[in-house]
Amino acid sequence: MLSTSKRNNIPKTPYSIIQKKRNGKKLTPEEIRWFLDGFVSKQITDAQMSALLMAICINGMDGEETATFTDIMLYSGKVLDFKEQAVIDKHSTGGVGDKTSFILAPIAAACGVKVPMIAGRGLGHSGGTVDKIEAIPGFNTSLSLDEFSEYLPKYGLVLIGQTGELAPIDKRIYALRDVTATVESYELITASIMSKKLAEGTSGIVMDVKAGNGAFMKNKTQARKLAKSMEDTALRFNKNIMTLITDMSQPLGNTVGNSLEIIESIETLQGRGPKDLTDLSVQLAGGMVYLAGLAKSHKEGIKKALATIKNGSAFEEFKKLIKRQGGDISYLSDFSKFKIAPISTQVPASKSGYITSMDTYKIGMHCVNLGGGRRHPKDLIDFSVGLTFHKKVGQKVKKGEALLTIHHHKKQLDLVQTINQDFINNIIKISSTKPKTITPLVFEVRTKWSKQ
Amino acid sequence: MLSTSKRNNIPKTPYSIIQKKRNGKKLTPEEIRWFLDGFVSKQITDAQMSALLMAICINGMDGEETATFTDIMLYSGKVLDFKEQAVIDKHSTGGVGDKTSFILAPIAAACGVKVPMIAGRGLGHSGGTVDKIEAIPGFNTSLSLDEFSEYLPKYGLVLIGQTGELAPIDKRIYALRDVTATVESYELITASIMSKKLAEGTSGIVMDVKAGNGAFMKNKTQARKLAKSMEDTALRFNKNIMTLITDMSQPLGNTVGNSLEIIESIETLQGRGPKDLTDLSVQLAGGMVYLAGLAKSHKEGIKKALATIKNGSAFEEFKKLIKRQGGDISYLSDFSKFKIAPISTQVPASKSGYITSMDTYKIGMHCVNLGGGRRHPKDLIDFSVGLTFHKKVGQKVKKGEALLTIHHHKKQLDLVQTINQDFINNIIKISSTKPKTITPLVFEVRTKWSKQ
Repeated sequence: MLSTSKRNNIPKTPYSIIQKKRNGKKLTPEEIRWFLDGFVSKQITDAQMSALLMAICINGMDGEETATFTDIMLYSGKVLDFKEQAVIDKHSTGGVGDKTSFILAPIAAACGVKVPMIAGRGLGHSGGTVDKIEAIPGFNTSLSLDEFSEYLPKYGLVLIGQTGELAPIDKRIYALRDVTATVESYELITASIMSKKLAEGTSGIVMDVKAGNGAFMKNKTQARKLAKSMEDTALRFNKNIMTLITDMSQPLGNTVGNSLEIIESIETLQGRGPKDLTDLSVQLAGGMVYLAGLAKSHKEGIKKALATIKNGSAFEEFKKLIKRQGGDISYLSDFSKFKIAPISTQVPASKSGYITSMDTYKIGMHCVNLGGGRRHPKDLIDFSVGLTFHKKVGQKVKKGEALLTIHHHKKQLDLVQTINQDFINNIIKISSTKPKTITPLVFEVRTKWSKQ
Repeated sequence: MLSTSKRNNIPKTPYSIIQKKRNGKKLTPEEIRWFLDGFVSKQITDAQMSALLMAICINGMDGEETATFTDIMLYSGKVLDFKEQAVIDKHSTGGVGDKTSFILAPIAAACGVKVPMIAGRGLGHSGGTVDKIEAIPGFNTSLSLDEFSEYLPKYGLVLIGQTGELAPIDKRIYALRDVTATVESYELITASIMSKKLAEGTSGIVMDVKAGNGAFMKNKTQARKLAKSMEDTALRFNKNIMTLITDMSQPLGNTVGNSLEIIESIETLQGRGPKDLTDLSVQLAGGMVYLAGLAKSHKEGIKKALATIKNGSAFEEFKKLIKRQGGDISYLSDFSKFKIAPISTQVPASKSGYITSMDTYKIGMHCVNLGGGRRHPKDLIDFSVGLTFHKKVGQKVKKGEALLTIHHHKKQLDLVQTINQDFINNIIKISSTKPKTITPLVFEVRTKWSKQ
């Protein structure tokens, strides 16, 4: 690539701004605003925006640039404000079997936190919160923003799908990123997430940044870099932020698939959940309680969170949420009502030993292959299919013992045969020697308080 | 930017190909072909193409990738073939006052070379060959490709504008590059130029790669890099190539502006041209004669070229070209017929001394400001305006002596005042000490013969 030509002396044109970022220079707030305003008014084309996004993706943005980008996306739509109330949201960068939202939100609400959940649908290897909750018939995630604003202070817990009214440019930009290989940018991820979270009217955010082979960030270094970018941006907007960097090198909990995950969430709310899922949900919920000022420390927040599982108040909040938004609460006491695919095929261990690793991305994709997720935004979801794991990484297994169960339809026998072989040959690794260390569930907890 | 995610394992999607180049990896010929074919059939959007172009611009392409890109653009349209004939074209990367085409083409034709000139219009600081020749009324640059193919073997010299029939994808891609700050890529410049030159049916190409403050390449290092990219690509297509890296740190010849440049070209063909313009035209034409196999060395080619000026045969070829394509040849013997703006304003030297430098980019832009060039592709050109330089870099001047004359209209007095001040204060630098070295006109001559 050539160095900057004299064209750079010419004031603000789409060309000169894209070129500046292409050459690795910092854009001024004025330049970013001018460019994004032009994109909104369609003076700047999708092609020009995509070129800028690619230049950002490769050459990065600094804290000020990222905050400016966030700010413009934020104010491109409605911005909610709940005044003095402790409104705390949680965001996860996404993983396989991640159903913590259904657990931590009622817990935090039961502790007195106002929890505004504006959640997404699934695309690719990780599922979506909005899809999963729809496994309960009748549940309405399409409330208006007015209803959302009314419900939150009144009930303390609302769960809706993403709305075009909040940070609408983000939607247009994300649609471009999704087809131009510009998704993987720390700064663009930060601006996209933070603009939506800020528009919700949160006073603080708990971020679950996942690291591992089932996550967007493959390792802790990448996860830390994203965490820092999020923190810097949150602080520039005077929001408190707690970031947990957590493991995603195996599915969270024991289930992957929409109905299965909702059942597991209810069990966890009732104190019968798997240890990893319970622990992480409680740590995240405890963080929300702490950020809301309802506990003196994260530890105290966790203690309060755990208590709401034990005394049933968290499950009660969940039940009220489902009822309030039109869901059939009879499902909560009768799991046989959930659609579960009729055939169960077990994947056996090919040898005795210890499970050393799982290719979690592939696990997520096999749930998609079964129909439990989307390859394209318009694909329909089959709530009934999925995977139930009987073993976790580090556990001892005997040859022939079931590692997991695949829940599928009769017509999928060939597909399941292929998936089965993939699990045995590639996805789950078994070694005769016991692994020396087991990856911890939570690598790091970081809390940043804004100065205001 | 994050490292490649698992998505990369998924075979050929627009996303995976863009992502691969974004991550600095080499694309296979198959991937480039698949992507460009998708662009032609509009399966791949302008936004996706722009993202890939930006990734190429920043991360580059190797020789094979560039050749593949060239090949696909080349075969996206008609490809001419003149069989055994010595068809040699010349291309310049563009500069200010560069009118060598009008001189070298008749010279080479007079020496027996078949010269297929498919030339461009001007945009930005440098003018266009097609615009300049239209200063002679009636001259038709819109011949059909059939006429072009018939004229070339018959007459040995044709001059037409770019046609959508040759390398049509290049036109679509260039339109994107022009608005997405992806013009400045050695590999994309190479593919764009070479695909068009190869489609013309040339057996060899003489490249004038200009280096300096009025050129696209600001220095010799950049110019050499582009030259090498061009050479590599030419050789992959079994074409001979001679590259001259030449100075563009002051206007070439004494004039800038359409009518003025045509007059100067005719004077040069008649042996009365400025030394720099004559020298460069003869060196380039000599190279064409040499590549055509009509001289044993570049030196002999230059000798033959010079002879055609002296014996009038070059001017005769030019006259025949103008007549053949409908131009009014009375202009060739009566320069007063050319449109020249009525007012001449002289720019005086502000002090005595030696001219040490000229900001050649700004000189080109002032010709555009006067109306002699285009800011936008649809702008109309005023043939009559321009600049005549009375001094070159290195020459001694006296305070108050005219450095140049601005040819303009009466209504442009305010603008000319501004231009005048810019020349005095910024563009032409005068020093009391004589410059120790004067930049040579030709830095380097490189000849590469294909093995076929």
